[in-house]
Amino acid sequence: MTTTTSAIAAAAPGGPLAPTTIERRDLRPDDVLIDIAYAGICHSDLHQVHQDWGTAIFPMVPGHEIAGVVAAVGANVTKYQVGDRVGVGCMVDSCGECEYCRAGSEQFCVKGNVQTYNGVGFDGENTYGGYSQQIVVKDAFVCRIPEGISLDVAAPLLCAGITTYSPLRRWGAGPGKKVAVVGLGGLGHMAVKLAVAMGADVTVLSQSLKKQEDGLRLGAKDYYATSDESTFETLAGQFDVILNTVSAKLPVDAYLSLLRVGGAMVNVGAPGEPLEYNVFSLLGGNRVLAGSMIGGIAETQEMLDFCAEHGVGAEIETISADQVNEAYARVENSDVRYRFVIDTSTIG
Amino acid sequence: MTTTTSAIAAAAPGGPLAPTTIERRDLRPDDVLIDIAYAGICHSDLHQVHQDWGTAIFPMVPGHEIAGVVAAVGANVTKYQVGDRVGVGCMVDSCGECEYCRAGSEQFCVKGNVQTYNGVGFDGENTYGGYSQQIVVKDAFVCRIPEGISLDVAAPLLCAGITTYSPLRRWGAGPGKKVAVVGLGGLGHMAVKLAVAMGADVTVLSQSLKKQEDGLRLGAKDYYATSDESTFETLAGQFDVILNTVSAKLPVDAYLSLLRVGGAMVNVGAPGEPLEYNVFSLLGGNRVLAGSMIGGIAETQEMLDFCAEHGVGAEIETISADQVNEAYARVENSDVRYRFVIDTSTIG
Repeated sequence: MTTTTSAIAAAAPGGPLAPTTIERRDLRPDDVLIDIAYAGICHSDLHQVHQDWGTAIFPMVPGHEIAGVVAAVGANVTKYQVGDRVGVGCMVDSCGECEYCRAGSEQFCVKGNVQTYNGVGFDGENTYGGYSQQIVVKDAFVCRIPEGISLDVAAPLLCAGITTYSPLRRWGAGPGKKVAVVGLGGLGHMAVKLAVAMGADVTVLSQSLKKQEDGLRLGAKDYYATSDESTFETLAGQFDVILNTVSAKLPVDAYLSLLRVGGAMVNVGAPGEPLEYNVFSLLGGNRVLAGSMIGGIAETQEMLDFCAEHGVGAEIETISADQVNEAYARVENSDVRYRFVIDTSTIG
Repeated sequence: MTTTTSAIAAAAPGGPLAPTTIERRDLRPDDVLIDIAYAGICHSDLHQVHQDWGTAIFPMVPGHEIAGVVAAVGANVTKYQVGDRVGVGCMVDSCGECEYCRAGSEQFCVKGNVQTYNGVGFDGENTYGGYSQQIVVKDAFVCRIPEGISLDVAAPLLCAGITTYSPLRRWGAGPGKKVAVVGLGGLGHMAVKLAVAMGADVTVLSQSLKKQEDGLRLGAKDYYATSDESTFETLAGQFDVILNTVSAKLPVDAYLSLLRVGGAMVNVGAPGEPLEYNVFSLLGGNRVLAGSMIGGIAETQEMLDFCAEHGVGAEIETISADQVNEAYARVENSDVRYRFVIDTSTIG
């Protein structure tokens, strides 16, 4: 037995997306049924629909920035009750037994985590994401959205929020630290808000000054255009952390030169082509080049609690189901400030 | 007034090296006059003599792995007395006032540190290194060589020792951690000994198995040939730290794949050409690519104390002054196990 729910799906690679219905499994003892209220559109949704990252499963219901309310719980669920405000991010399961799962880094499960959509569960069933009205998720992969954050601005925190929160924490963003955020898009605007809330002194490095006013409004102290070569001279050796949120092929050595001694440049965006660097850029100043991929479930909860405490949510543009294809085109053109969120009540 | 001392110098770029005499300055109030007993031959000495790193100052007296005994001290020196066993490494001065000097990272002095040789002091005088019988160095740049380490095996610690000690400490080599050392040369053999002394489980990754017996004798648990492709499958995801001591252009992504989640590959060798990496190699597993350059003076002292406590010294082949050119040729051919040390009593 299953439950039928309305969803937006790409029937085939490349789209378009269109309304449909899908089946959600009946509740297992540790499952939570969520009435989805909002689902964010992440740039990776476009990559998945377009099969940029390899063969994908179709029909595809994208969406891994999910916020909603608990509608029912399985027999063994004690952590959540009907009516609780909850969120789901990029994963819906992992083995739970390997050293990484036990350490709270489920995203690096040695058996592979189960992606929220375009994934296959340990039961062999395909997964379908948040562009729908209901979803069934194992309780351990559900996070609580604290009072004080609206569900619409909370949805993007489940991917864009944790993706930027985790490296900012690991690399020590906080009072007395200078943080540069490269790119002011969906990830970048969250990085600015979070780093500011952590107490860091934040600078945005963007190709142009087009979004300067926004950057400063979000709390950045400075805003520089990277198309202006003097930026790299002016800011040489200034930053403790550079969080690179763009997927373009950047001149790595030039960015490394902006780091202080011991500083780290962390990549959360991933260009398709290899990047080049000169080892001297790392040796001089004991510098670090790192990557970061989302975050574990406990850290995602920590991030949501942090956001509630500091009044941090995404900057969103809410759309209805029939605007999704148009929104995709706009995301492709970087024409969104800063995240589209689908009001899932408009589906079907 | 100055003191004349015997030395070995390259009169012009490319060498050869030959006996000569040089002048050492009279003691300033904070200076220490050292009777040098041994000077290590570092691969970078060859690069400097060959001007591989840009125009250099000739005549050049190389040598920044210096061990000896205090022969005299300036009026204000209280830290050292005549007869003390001391060492000097890659630097002999820095501004002392910038944030990095104050933090004990004199190697990253914003005014530039003064290199032990092929440098220019803040007084405008050229510096000459350790291939000589005496040297005058500001007390703050002199380290104490504890009883329990012979001066000959201590000399290479002043560069090869600190260069590998510092990144092993920063990146957490210790009990329960798996460390891979890439390359078993002058730096690599020190890295193995130090990481073993720190309590880590150490593996050597070398092109061939030629030095396997040595590696295991130095304390490594495993030894793999990187020319064997199966090595990269066997060791996938195993290491907390990879310390890369070679200057060859390595396939960075292949080495990153050997790291555990959150693991770091640290480079202390520097190839002349840029390296390539795929950002996904860093994202998957929150991995780190880092560089490290020698260490500060306080950390160098800490390293010497650690070596004395753990009975760690370099594996050396002691040579006389007339063997230096032959030794250079052998270093060029990686034909040394593992460091040449000049007995400076044989000079002149």
